Amino acid sequence: MKNIIRKRLSLAGLEAGTLAGNTAVLGQAITLVESQREEDQLLAQELITLLLPHTGHSLRIGITGVPGVGKSTFIEIFGKHLTAQNKKVAVLAIDPSSGKTKGSILGDKTRMEELAKDPRAFIRPSATGNTLGGVANRTREAILLCEAAGYEIIIVETVGVGQSETSVRSMVDYFLLLMLAGAGDELQGIKKGIMEMADGLVITKADGENERKATQAQADFQYALHLFSQPESGVAPTVMTCSALFKKGISEIWESIIAFKEKTTFNGFLQSQRDRQDLEWFESYFQQLWQQNFQANKNIQSAKKELVKKINQKELSPLQAAQILFTKKI
Amino acid sequence: MKNIIRKRLSLAGLEAGTLAGNTAVLGQAITLVESQREEDQLLAQELITLLLPHTGHSLRIGITGVPGVGKSTFIEIFGKHLTAQNKKVAVLAIDPSSGKTKGSILGDKTRMEELAKDPRAFIRPSATGNTLGGVANRTREAILLCEAAGYEIIIVETVGVGQSETSVRSMVDYFLLLMLAGAGDELQGIKKGIMEMADGLVITKADGENERKATQAQADFQYALHLFSQPESGVAPTVMTCSALFKKGISEIWESIIAFKEKTTFNGFLQSQRDRQDLEWFESYFQQLWQQNFQANKNIQSAKKELVKKINQKELSPLQAAQILFTKKI
Repeated sequence: MKNIIRKRLSLAGLEAGTLAGNTAVLGQAITLVESQREEDQLLAQELITLLLPHTGHSLRIGITGVPGVGKSTFIEIFGKHLTAQNKKVAVLAIDPSSGKTKGSILGDKTRMEELAKDPRAFIRPSATGNTLGGVANRTREAILLCEAAGYEIIIVETVGVGQSETSVRSMVDYFLLLMLAGAGDELQGIKKGIMEMADGLVITKADGENERKATQAQADFQYALHLFSQPESGVAPTVMTCSALFKKGISEIWESIIAFKEKTTFNGFLQSQRDRQDLEWFESYFQQLWQQNFQANKNIQSAKKELVKKINQKELSPLQAAQILFTKKI
Repeated sequence: MKNIIRKRLSLAGLEAGTLAGNTAVLGQAITLVESQREEDQLLAQELITLLLPHTGHSLRIGITGVPGVGKSTFIEIFGKHLTAQNKKVAVLAIDPSSGKTKGSILGDKTRMEELAKDPRAFIRPSATGNTLGGVANRTREAILLCEAAGYEIIIVETVGVGQSETSVRSMVDYFLLLMLAGAGDELQGIKKGIMEMADGLVITKADGENERKATQAQADFQYALHLFSQPESGVAPTVMTCSALFKKGISEIWESIIAFKEKTTFNGFLQSQRDRQDLEWFESYFQQLWQQNFQANKNIQSAKKELVKKINQKELSPLQAAQILFTKKI
């Protein structure tokens, strides 16, 4: 399949098609970026370099929340709200999968049916696999490709499983956390680290009997956020409520995001955050190149084997063994 | 303070005192291990190497659960149950803290008051700071020191914040997950990755009105666990209930842990898991040594600065920049 794609579309074809906003070509470009084959990787990097001058103009929004909070429903309604304003919206999903079973958490692909049919929207299920750079770097590259294809709002969705939020935070301009009202404050409290990363919080399902609870939760979270230090962005996070069912609160959320964008453009944070993100990305790639090289070096691997034996026999502590190996390497 | 300790206790003194089970000396040895000073680090590694032959005989138990699940109360009752059987118990806490504010999640140190007074118990609050090896490696070394001091059960406690569970899982023989009944299955469901790491699950607070809910949750979780693949340990995880208030379920939990230990000793998993953990530890130290060296290398740092400029100017993609830097380094 990938072979066919590569034969069918040259680098120039991928470049032109992506820039023209052809979603079939964009999809193929993302597949190329996700490919684990070395040739595909090389081609993907050439493509990204060609497209770089056409990237960066979108607003990148990360959305997270525990399963059951209504992420897909929210993104569908939110996305439709944006496409109704003539904006082109791309939705990318990060699925860290279960480390052990490699199973997918996200489940079926029939989510966001309405948005998927919208010609102004592009939805791409999550990158998978354990290639160089991992899922996070694949998603970063997919963001660039979507930008080159003219998407103005890129939504990166993640499931609430700890590490993936940090990844997503490191690739977006604005990070939105969806929460449930009354689902046990203590349980949601474990996400303190994640609340601190959020630029905005939305209490979902604020309708019917749940509306009063949602308003109370809004006040509680707004208070809790005051306890945190002032965010680097210089913009205090807002807590909002919404009902995807009654399409309530969506335009307020969008206005709040726009206000964030304006303030951080003015104070320089938007750009400085992106520069820092690029640096992190670069460092993460460098790290991985180095690791691959280390794994491939036979002398190092045989020295390592000897040292591991000594650790198992309790002759060396792991740190001492590491120091010995490090001296050999240098 | 640390200076005074070092003057007062020589390496031989630390070794002898730790081996004699002197808790004051053990405490000082752990402080040494946690110290960020290079001389302390060197001394700490010498001490650990001296003590290595006296380590490894304990059963290492990791305990996790979200805040509010009753971890401290459980560990206190569980610890007392063990000391009543004449066992020496050490409790170490891992506190990953909030990445951003460096605040402590664990709160006051007056937890586990009863156990703290017990002469057969040793309680050490969490390692902090961002030294070589990080909190996880500090805790690994503290485990070795406690073993050398004769502790037979080492409990490593962590708060339920994603990454720290993975750390703890990588340093213990048995991993116990505490859960609440009826606190929202969906919310607890986000911890699928963590449930898969658990060798045992305990539904806490199974008393009074909550007892029926706890029994139901026990059945639900036991069923859910059947959906996971057979664990590497070869021992299917058990779901238990307990009431710390009425001291119910504690001996059953201990028996289940003992059964796990016997089965995994017999099938070789206990040792092979420890060997693998040592290897991971060694690799993590090596990684960090390398990173330190990289940060200290001026040529690399100036080349990096140039490359970052090119990334910001969109002349190079982060991967290309990483490849260029990597070629320079080799």
